[in-house]
Amino acid sequence: MPMKKRQLGPCVTFFPQPTTLIGTVDPEGRVDLMTASWAGIVSKTPPTMAVSLNKSRLSYDNIRRTGCFTVNCVPSGLAVEADYCGIRSGRDRDKTAVTGLELDQAEQVDAPLVRACPLNVECRVTGEVELGDYRLILGEILQIHAVEEAFDEVGGIEPQAFDPLVYLGGIRQYWSLGGHIADAYRDGLALEKNGEDQG
Amino acid sequence: MPMKKRQLGPCVTFFPQPTTLIGTVDPEGRVDLMTASWAGIVSKTPPTMAVSLNKSRLSYDNIRRTGCFTVNCVPSGLAVEADYCGIRSGRDRDKTAVTGLELDQAEQVDAPLVRACPLNVECRVTGEVELGDYRLILGEILQIHAVEEAFDEVGGIEPQAFDPLVYLGGIRQYWSLGGHIADAYRDGLALEKNGEDQG
Repeated sequence: MPMKKRQLGPCVTFFPQPTTLIGTVDPEGRVDLMTASWAGIVSKTPPTMAVSLNKSRLSYDNIRRTGCFTVNCVPSGLAVEADYCGIRSGRDRDKTAVTGLELDQAEQVDAPLVRACPLNVECRVTGEVELGDYRLILGEILQIHAVEEAFDEVGGIEPQAFDPLVYLGGIRQYWSLGGHIADAYRDGLALEKNGEDQG
Repeated sequence: MPMKKRQLGPCVTFFPQPTTLIGTVDPEGRVDLMTASWAGIVSKTPPTMAVSLNKSRLSYDNIRRTGCFTVNCVPSGLAVEADYCGIRSGRDRDKTAVTGLELDQAEQVDAPLVRACPLNVECRVTGEVELGDYRLILGEILQIHAVEEAFDEVGGIEPQAFDPLVYLGGIRQYWSLGGHIADAYRDGLALEKNGEDQG
């Protein structure tokens, strides 16, 4: 039976996305943090992230000048601080002062790491795509910093340690992660085993 | 106090991403479904999605030929089916037969909608970016279908009705959504009110 669905036309809609803080510096060395939820891995060859920004943002100017940026994964405890960094512009607010977010020096790029974010990615710009008022910035991943608590004894990662804040675009809500549902590149194979048993 | 962090070097890491099924058709009209977790909104002007695919995938060939695709938001109850569609290739498996996923006709593009996915997006290709072995496909959103149960009386969207499956790249795990933490473009402003109260 078909699910009854409503047609919304062409619009920006709901997909779970990460909440990230993009770290940059301006020509005077002043730091800016901007919230971006459209950010993610786009290639493994080489490891590349893409981030989409409105071209009017200070962060976009900073990235154009310095050719680098950081992507900082926001934990659920920093939802309010992250939301603030998405609403205000670094042109007229000192967001680190208002939010109290502390910074560390990146290793390979001229951009700040957000200390309280359990995962920080250093990127060097490798491309840019024009999309209306937005610019999709492509960044090669140069270094990743992940909080020690996330690693188990064999080097596996426990996602609870990151407690990532998930952004639901379209409805403008921040959510936490729930429970572990399945393992990728593994649980799907059960469908073929079933088929073999029946065949 | 700084958080102690481990350096991972340049690699593909952990960010919460949507789990989606990309729907396409081949020149003989055979449908293919491929799982993609790097998919998201990248512009509002016009509404645009981007999806990153390995260039060796059948879905990539299909998209190149037809110039269109659908993005279907996977609910947590379809984790196993979605995982299967990411592991196997439509070149040697009929994934709809193995998974039992039923399809509906899209309205504006030559590509299938996954009936059991509560949100379906129809896209027309507007650009492509080469990223090593991957191709970032840009698609203008032409139509969105959202399940009726997701809408409240005033047209607001209840994310529980979508129950989106979140993919954690790097650690290859599927998770559900947890709880509503904060509202975007609103809760961050409390930081300024606090400042004014104290000032």
